Amino acid sequence: MTPDDFRAHAHQVADWMADYLETVGERPVKSRARPGEITARLPASAPEDGEPFEAIMADFNDIIVPGLTHWQHPGFFAYFPANASPPSILAEMLAAVLATQCMSWQTSPAATELEGRVMEWLRELVGLPADFIGAIQDTASTATLCAILAARERASDFATNHTGLSGGPRMTTYCSSEGHSSIDKAVRIAGLGSDQLRKIAVDQHSAMDPAALDAAIAADAAAGLRPVCVVATLGSTSQSAVDPLRAIGAVCRRHGVWLHVDAAWAGSALVLPEMRWMIDGIEAADSLVFNPHKWLLTQLECSAFYVRDKAALIRTFEILPEYLKTREGDQVTNYRDWGVQLGRRFRALKLWFVLRSYGRTGLQAHVRRHIALAQDLAARIAAQPDFEVLAPSPLALVCFRYHPPGLDDPAKLDALNETLLETLNDSGALYLTQTRLDGAYVIRFAIGAVLTEARHVEAAWEKIQHTARRLGEGT
Amino acid sequence: MTPDDFRAHAHQVADWMADYLETVGERPVKSRARPGEITARLPASAPEDGEPFEAIMADFNDIIVPGLTHWQHPGFFAYFPANASPPSILAEMLAAVLATQCMSWQTSPAATELEGRVMEWLRELVGLPADFIGAIQDTASTATLCAILAARERASDFATNHTGLSGGPRMTTYCSSEGHSSIDKAVRIAGLGSDQLRKIAVDQHSAMDPAALDAAIAADAAAGLRPVCVVATLGSTSQSAVDPLRAIGAVCRRHGVWLHVDAAWAGSALVLPEMRWMIDGIEAADSLVFNPHKWLLTQLECSAFYVRDKAALIRTFEILPEYLKTREGDQVTNYRDWGVQLGRRFRALKLWFVLRSYGRTGLQAHVRRHIALAQDLAARIAAQPDFEVLAPSPLALVCFRYHPPGLDDPAKLDALNETLLETLNDSGALYLTQTRLDGAYVIRFAIGAVLTEARHVEAAWEKIQHTARRLGEGT
Repeated sequence: MTPDDFRAHAHQVADWMADYLETVGERPVKSRARPGEITARLPASAPEDGEPFEAIMADFNDIIVPGLTHWQHPGFFAYFPANASPPSILAEMLAAVLATQCMSWQTSPAATELEGRVMEWLRELVGLPADFIGAIQDTASTATLCAILAARERASDFATNHTGLSGGPRMTTYCSSEGHSSIDKAVRIAGLGSDQLRKIAVDQHSAMDPAALDAAIAADAAAGLRPVCVVATLGSTSQSAVDPLRAIGAVCRRHGVWLHVDAAWAGSALVLPEMRWMIDGIEAADSLVFNPHKWLLTQLECSAFYVRDKAALIRTFEILPEYLKTREGDQVTNYRDWGVQLGRRFRALKLWFVLRSYGRTGLQAHVRRHIALAQDLAARIAAQPDFEVLAPSPLALVCFRYHPPGLDDPAKLDALNETLLETLNDSGALYLTQTRLDGAYVIRFAIGAVLTEARHVEAAWEKIQHTARRLGEGT
Repeated sequence: MTPDDFRAHAHQVADWMADYLETVGERPVKSRARPGEITARLPASAPEDGEPFEAIMADFNDIIVPGLTHWQHPGFFAYFPANASPPSILAEMLAAVLATQCMSWQTSPAATELEGRVMEWLRELVGLPADFIGAIQDTASTATLCAILAARERASDFATNHTGLSGGPRMTTYCSSEGHSSIDKAVRIAGLGSDQLRKIAVDQHSAMDPAALDAAIAADAAAGLRPVCVVATLGSTSQSAVDPLRAIGAVCRRHGVWLHVDAAWAGSALVLPEMRWMIDGIEAADSLVFNPHKWLLTQLECSAFYVRDKAALIRTFEILPEYLKTREGDQVTNYRDWGVQLGRRFRALKLWFVLRSYGRTGLQAHVRRHIALAQDLAARIAAQPDFEVLAPSPLALVCFRYHPPGLDDPAKLDALNETLLETLNDSGALYLTQTRLDGAYVIRFAIGAVLTEARHVEAAWEKIQHTARRLGEGT
């Protein structure tokens, strides 16, 4: 591909991108592909010689795009959103051509210093304490793993990296029964064992019970185990439950246990002063993660990981072979020592573009708009006698089910709602996912896509009612 | 930003990208920024209100770009390359606007199936056995961690994920003394402890001594420890040493130990039949990683991770909470269960664009060209009486130092070469990095950037000689 070819193709792709954003809402949000259908359309081997760009783009349009689920569709209400705003897309284009490898300061001075700066900006925007130091991780899964590893190392006076865990005390970790699966995964990876992850009981709002946490830690310590880390959740995946940080922090301080806060989705809402109640007591936390790539307009991967004891984190990960030494030594930040990976993309660029393009007021308007839409939706659902809202909606997630009067068999209710969900998703107009609350099948409606407006939520709710009642007639 | 604004800005950025690729060679390859200089030019807080795109681009050009080290510069000979070819850049533009989250088949059917297919294509292109199943990881660090975790789990009959390592046997791991720092990091993260990572002695070509490996494993087993994983290296970072796979594989089979192959950089050269000697004996390996994002034209992050026992890998990572269940169940591949992260970018797209744009012959020409340049350079260096080539150059890395006749004090030689390296790097014309071989300071010259041509290598070599001799006169 000559330079002139590249320029022409880049303009062609730029138009494709703009067209896509203008028309994504007209596509089925959840792909209608059947398992194996895409594979069957792709040759079994790479071509012997290079093919023209036009042929690749034609197959991209014909085979790949119809086989995708469209996360930027205004009818995407599944899981949590994965925001890709126009400024973050433009920044990713630049990052793609720079293709800077940001492992060390010397390999990317401006990327390193920009990352430090935008993490300070973001810390201030979400109201975290000034002694929280940030780095961008790829995902909250990785950030939570980093926190648990740093906690493990600090608890062993940084010995287990070298000695290993065999022969040492059993180390225990804690989260609520609503904690995300990534906590379980991190505990396993770190060698601590999921048997030693205590799932602490929750109160009627599904928030962790600090007294139960205190008792569990005390019992483990009394039994000769070593409690090392508590993960508190702000905005649980199933139902946006918020753990009481102040009380949990007091327990952690008393027992000398690392407190990590998983605010992967809900953390973006901290740009709103009215949502800061969630971090009341944050001073006692050791680390926190939230994902601007979920709800703060900055696309995958951009996970903001803050830690108070930077030295503990670096000591957990730092390895310095000769071939990675640079003459700047300790004068500079080398983010390779802040996490699992050595290679790092230039992720700070898109966050900088987003924070400058929207400003504090623009970010607030984005999140506030989705919360208002969700509050309105929850009220509408609650107003219908044949629907139930099944959890509080403090943020932008509404948990509900269809419950026609007289149908009280739990298995039948579950089956009806599962059918409802699949029918809605197959329509292509909206995409919802499920969870279980107290054993019951529940539909999650998470509002947060960049393109979602009131009319999309209204249309979805109309479709839900219509589909549910049509299905309900058959029961 | 309106849709029309986005379209206009995307075209503006497309031109910036094309201009950058045409002119990157005119910039200083290694940034001249001083520590703190970029930070000082960035405001302490995010703006209150959004700013126009033009203002952000102006600061990007004025503050950020001059502060970057240019990994795509034709004079980039440091570390290993981080290839970003035009087709991979175009694919990243598309991935940026789709912003698909590829954790599950249902959330991205075409991305999942394309990933499976291109990993089959790549397997065939590099000559791996047909029972190697691939997934794209972000980096080789993560892939090696995945391999060590799967080895740990298999060795414990998948118990340690649950029980933790405390109370169990000490598990030992093995690599040569030339193994990459990511192996050490992975062993620490997995809780096995770097004290149990045996750095096996190497032969005169810096390749692992299989007899020493055999003895070390036998001694550990006899002492009641549990050997779980050997990491063999193809193309070591310091000097491109290649471990003898067949002999190592036989040792691993005999002792029932997982064999992981770290071919992060050199693996791309396996597209050449004449380099397949490196994987003679690969049938005994359990996993292998190499990075198309280093030397196979597919930009960060694209790490090709192959594993023979897919079930062991999935069993190591799989966790299935209600909110992640999809109706397809076991019919489909859910790549979230193949590694550390839950969230995944659409990385297969760029690999597909690259493999189709270049074809087998184009990929071969790319790698073969760099190897030829390196062979030629090594011969030129060896022909000069005041320079020394200090390791074999089977691939595209040349290790050398300046050694003026009569200067034999090791400390002075090291200091002279360190000054040489820093002087060259400060020139902005080329970027080299260092290692130590047998204690001596050595300059690494790694050829592999997409834009590097013979003239760039020749100019660099001229500059090296000129600079070295000028500095040498002062000693």
